[in-house]
Amino acid sequence: MKALVYHGPGEKVWEDVPDATVQEPTDVVVRVDTTTICGTDLHILQGDVAAVTDGRILGHEAVGTVTEVGDAVRGFHVGDRVLVPAITKCGRCAYCQRGMPSHCQTVGGIGWIFGHLIDGTQAEFVRVPYADTSLYSVPDDVTNEQAIFLADSLPTGYEVGVLAGNVRPGDTVAVVGAGAVGLAAILTTGLWGASKVIAIDSNKFRLTKALEFGATDAVEVGPDVVADVIALTDGLGVEVAIEAVGYPQTLRTAASLVRPGGTIANIGVHGAPVELPMQDMWIQNIALTMGLVDTVSIPTLLKMVASGRIPAEKMGTHSFTFDQIDDAYDVFKNAAANEALKVVITP
Amino acid sequence: MKALVYHGPGEKVWEDVPDATVQEPTDVVVRVDTTTICGTDLHILQGDVAAVTDGRILGHEAVGTVTEVGDAVRGFHVGDRVLVPAITKCGRCAYCQRGMPSHCQTVGGIGWIFGHLIDGTQAEFVRVPYADTSLYSVPDDVTNEQAIFLADSLPTGYEVGVLAGNVRPGDTVAVVGAGAVGLAAILTTGLWGASKVIAIDSNKFRLTKALEFGATDAVEVGPDVVADVIALTDGLGVEVAIEAVGYPQTLRTAASLVRPGGTIANIGVHGAPVELPMQDMWIQNIALTMGLVDTVSIPTLLKMVASGRIPAEKMGTHSFTFDQIDDAYDVFKNAAANEALKVVITP
Amino acid sequence: MKALVYHGPGEKVWEDVPDATVQEPTDVVVRVDTTTICGTDLHILQGDVAAVTDGRILGHEAVGTVTEVGDAVRGFHVGDRVLVPAITKCGRCAYCQRGMPSHCQTVGGIGWIFGHLIDGTQAEFVRVPYADTSLYSVPDDVTNEQAIFLADSLPTGYEVGVLAGNVRPGDTVAVVGAGAVGLAAILTTGLWGASKVIAIDSNKFRLTKALEFGATDAVEVGPDVVADVIALTDGLGVEVAIEAVGYPQTLRTAASLVRPGGTIANIGVHGAPVELPMQDMWIQNIALTMGLVDTVSIPTLLKMVASGRIPAEKMGTHSFTFDQIDDAYDVFKNAAANEALKVVITP
Amino acid sequence: MKALVYHGPGEKVWEDVPDATVQEPTDVVVRVDTTTICGTDLHILQGDVAAVTDGRILGHEAVGTVTEVGDAVRGFHVGDRVLVPAITKCGRCAYCQRGMPSHCQTVGGIGWIFGHLIDGTQAEFVRVPYADTSLYSVPDDVTNEQAIFLADSLPTGYEVGVLAGNVRPGDTVAVVGAGAVGLAAILTTGLWGASKVIAIDSNKFRLTKALEFGATDAVEVGPDVVADVIALTDGLGVEVAIEAVGYPQTLRTAASLVRPGGTIANIGVHGAPVELPMQDMWIQNIALTMGLVDTVSIPTLLKMVASGRIPAEKMGTHSFTFDQIDDAYDVFKNAAANEALKVVITP
Repeated sequence: MKALVYHGPGEKVWEDVPDATVQEPTDVVVRVDTTTICGTDLHILQGDVAAVTDGRILGHEAVGTVTEVGDAVRGFHVGDRVLVPAITKCGRCAYCQRGMPSHCQTVGGIGWIFGHLIDGTQAEFVRVPYADTSLYSVPDDVTNEQAIFLADSLPTGYEVGVLAGNVRPGDTVAVVGAGAVGLAAILTTGLWGASKVIAIDSNKFRLTKALEFGATDAVEVGPDVVADVIALTDGLGVEVAIEAVGYPQTLRTAASLVRPGGTIANIGVHGAPVELPMQDMWIQNIALTMGLVDTVSIPTLLKMVASGRIPAEKMGTHSFTFDQIDDAYDVFKNAAANEALKVVITP
Repeated sequence: MKALVYHGPGEKVWEDVPDATVQEPTDVVVRVDTTTICGTDLHILQGDVAAVTDGRILGHEAVGTVTEVGDAVRGFHVGDRVLVPAITKCGRCAYCQRGMPSHCQTVGGIGWIFGHLIDGTQAEFVRVPYADTSLYSVPDDVTNEQAIFLADSLPTGYEVGVLAGNVRPGDTVAVVGAGAVGLAAILTTGLWGASKVIAIDSNKFRLTKALEFGATDAVEVGPDVVADVIALTDGLGVEVAIEAVGYPQTLRTAASLVRPGGTIANIGVHGAPVELPMQDMWIQNIALTMGLVDTVSIPTLLKMVASGRIPAEKMGTHSFTFDQIDDAYDVFKNAAANEALKVVITP
Repeated sequence: MKALVYHGPGEKVWEDVPDATVQEPTDVVVRVDTTTICGTDLHILQGDVAAVTDGRILGHEAVGTVTEVGDAVRGFHVGDRVLVPAITKCGRCAYCQRGMPSHCQTVGGIGWIFGHLIDGTQAEFVRVPYADTSLYSVPDDVTNEQAIFLADSLPTGYEVGVLAGNVRPGDTVAVVGAGAVGLAAILTTGLWGASKVIAIDSNKFRLTKALEFGATDAVEVGPDVVADVIALTDGLGVEVAIEAVGYPQTLRTAASLVRPGGTIANIGVHGAPVELPMQDMWIQNIALTMGLVDTVSIPTLLKMVASGRIPAEKMGTHSFTFDQIDDAYDVFKNAAANEALKVVITP
Repeated sequence: MKALVYHGPGEKVWEDVPDATVQEPTDVVVRVDTTTICGTDLHILQGDVAAVTDGRILGHEAVGTVTEVGDAVRGFHVGDRVLVPAITKCGRCAYCQRGMPSHCQTVGGIGWIFGHLIDGTQAEFVRVPYADTSLYSVPDDVTNEQAIFLADSLPTGYEVGVLAGNVRPGDTVAVVGAGAVGLAAILTTGLWGASKVIAIDSNKFRLTKALEFGATDAVEVGPDVVADVIALTDGLGVEVAIEAVGYPQTLRTAASLVRPGGTIANIGVHGAPVELPMQDMWIQNIALTMGLVDTVSIPTLLKMVASGRIPAEKMGTHSFTFDQIDDAYDVFKNAAANEALKVVITP
């Protein structure tokens, strides 16, 4: 079979590799019908993720068809259309049993293993461990082009932004950064009844998209961004500030926007320490949350996509085939400039 | 009447001042039968709290007796024994109605006004605004020497440490700093069924007290403090790390102790920014909480003191009278060296 | 002034009464600009509510203008446009402080006192006790004809149905009874992201309204109603069954619709015991909730009405003036037959 | 091997049966080192549980040693000392993933299958399906005689009583019925900081035990039982009333004890409908909860037993060997008269 293989910083090749096969009785093999690229894949290619070594197949998001089933698998059969989520869940460790498989102790201390600790989904086929507890069936009324964004982006925005941020009906929510994950948070805040959703970005295309995805206000980044956002509230700031970029400055901006008693939900992947003004923050009765997605919200999100309340397909702005995967990376690498959110890649 | 008056950094005098009187129909006047000193009072004396100006009576904790009642007060009468908590609550603003009077918008945007925005409790008498919604009756089976620590220290350890930290039955909890507030957290973790409580301090007296107050383990600060604490867990760290000091290093220590999915509850009052290793923390599905006490847990704590489950009187290690209040400050200023936790001051 | 006075079962007269005046420093007087009739008023007229005695002014819902203010009132001034909610809150008792003023111990052990324990709102003026903690300002972008339904109906459907029922994103919700309160629950389920809302009634007009108010499915009551609803789920039943009628049979129907792990939220006012099939229910990990509205959700609902997400004005189907108040009662008494939901009554 | 086999109402025989073997790759076989009898076993013997048919091995609680392991099992090995809980969890269905395996859709729509839908634990060996997600390792510092009560009784009292009842620090809790499960609730209320725990029973032995297990008050059933309990509260009733008997009258008693805003947690297994005074209850803002144990609290309870906070061994009052199992049933059948709580049965 063919797959996109990492060969050290900056090097990746769509090349022949050994076929994916069932190795454990709890495995299945899935033919990849749709995949996509995540910001994390770009980090890997920059050599930022030490655990990813030469020879690893990239990618951790897929929708596909089951082609082989291990002896112990009972919930899935050959031919089933399935969503392969970013997180693999053993189902039995303490983290899985409390609904936090992002830190599954069995599969590696971290639930994100595809394209990281084991071979990934940017391939014709992928081996899926712990299939019964990890895979999700895709309902007939959800397309591949919708489901693919439920593998990682939408659950990340929803779980790490909206749920961790504790959005409640009537709340005003600010989202710092309207890239794919920030937009995912915007798309899903409505599930918890936010009354006002303020998107903040420096890119006009993204702000336009934000309004289309459910933001009620769009604020362009400038010297007065904090004052501009506060002016849209009752003067106290927002109940929930979601950070979806990953830089010290954007996290401090989010912290400046939140009112006493509110929550700063950090989604951004940080590469450096962040200095926080604790001398001002300690008294504010706020929480700063952060974390990796668990993907346990996928069943809820599938229902909302099926019922038409979440137009997940809007996340896909560009389409490619496997043999154009280098082009897909090129477009996604400069997503803002290319007016790209997420790419859709199919055989 | 006499009161302890602030006269600029480093200056305080026990002197004659005009009598406290009812000014608003919702006020009462309370004769102070017992008061104490808080770490915040020391900050004020260092000139760190700009809102406190020359002439302000210090103190925000008292147990006393009602001596005068405004026309609109219905819940309290002359002669009632009452607890004057650190926080004043209007009862009608959005923060009060959600149970977060630490940010009461009516009394000053912050609920802590005694000895800060209005005259305080280190005095023979104190005017108490919004008495009906702010004061608490003291049950007969709770002594003044117990109740005084429910004005601020115990609710702070409990609300900002144990409750914000989301301690749950079976949890392992680390408390960084076993001063008065850290010990208050230790005293109250049992209310939520912690299975292991690890006290961390550099002072042997405090560690001894910690074990007496309910800690199961005491760890002396040293170069391997993080490893020492982790070794007392299952290797993953604690579910809840409570910071009760207020320095960058102690907050980073707390952050190093928490396992994925846990909470860092900051109680410490910080005077400087804190650099956090967000490059390591972002992936850990943790929350960092912080804030001022609301004192809304006082009814619960009064019940637990009355039933003997919380021996609040153990917080008081030294006693003084009003005319010894300078000595009381001297002892409390060097609390660790003097083997002092909290002082009890009476007429 | 004029008011609608109860004179024993079946007897009510719009007649001259002494003017409403401030009696306590925490009172205000409100000129009633808009009021309405509640199902409870009909119960009172049938003589079902023993606490209501001859001479009592009826009604517990109003929007109006402050005309007189007690000495201790600080949050409201003459001329303010205010919402008088069904529940009066002292703000200081244990129930008020935990956000459950439906059982305010100060005003009568129950927070519903207007038109019950004190004179009510179907009058030209009404005295409002504990005004600071009870009244709500009405924002400019909310009309009287919207706000009036936030005095009782909408918060009842939302708090006792949607909130007590613990509706969560993706849930399927059944509402048994699509009268005013059932429709209020339907209007507000969207705030918590329900994916499917099934309205059940025997009246076609109400079912039509239910679909207009946000229900996704309408089921007419018939011999197979339970099977019909279950067929709209995945075969297991609904996550939340809201009962909005108040009869033994309708509560049992709600109980038959809920899946294991779900909630039956009873809103109905019952007049008789109900036999429940506990031999079938005990094993199902369900909760049956019930209660009187607290009206503490009014600030949230005002925001959602102001932002256009809740079209509260749709609850008002018929309008009357004070001197037509008998007609208003006649129409409301046969609401289903008259295709009436709620009536709007103005001077 | 030998096992206790059901042969129709009133008939059970300790007899030879085919050996337990691994049938699915996710199975293990456990040698039963300790088992016990549950009230449900008595119901089965009375013919009350239609799903249990002639030839079924009884029992659903065991501590034992793994003797055979299926190909797909990764978390357990031959020789491991394990707790076999009453509930079997597939780990992948929607109920298992939300932490409610009491209704595991895979193993039978109900998680209780041992001694019910498949052969049980009152045998020399037992086949355990879905071993990885269902079994628990027993720590060295927990004995078999402690662990056996964590298979069902203690989690039932804790989950269905204390957790479902939403006990919170400071609460007053009444437990109606101080048999094994009521005592389990009493033993575990302390984990959530109850300030007062009132045991109610007609049997003096049980009331004595209740006080020994942590109750603060014991009330003997009599004509004034409700008034007697209310007198132990502040006059309003208890925050949480736990029903642990299963009769209409005991549930109504529990309902009479709860204050507005409280919870009635039904643990009792009911065999008949129950008439509830909804005409009085509807207004009280209460919840009535009920259900089968999930056993997901076992890890927490194991920690609390290991740390000495829960003396689980006190539940075992009588010991028997397998060949005395008929005597064990005879004693347990008349538990109150025999001053028995739970029996311990070993090879």
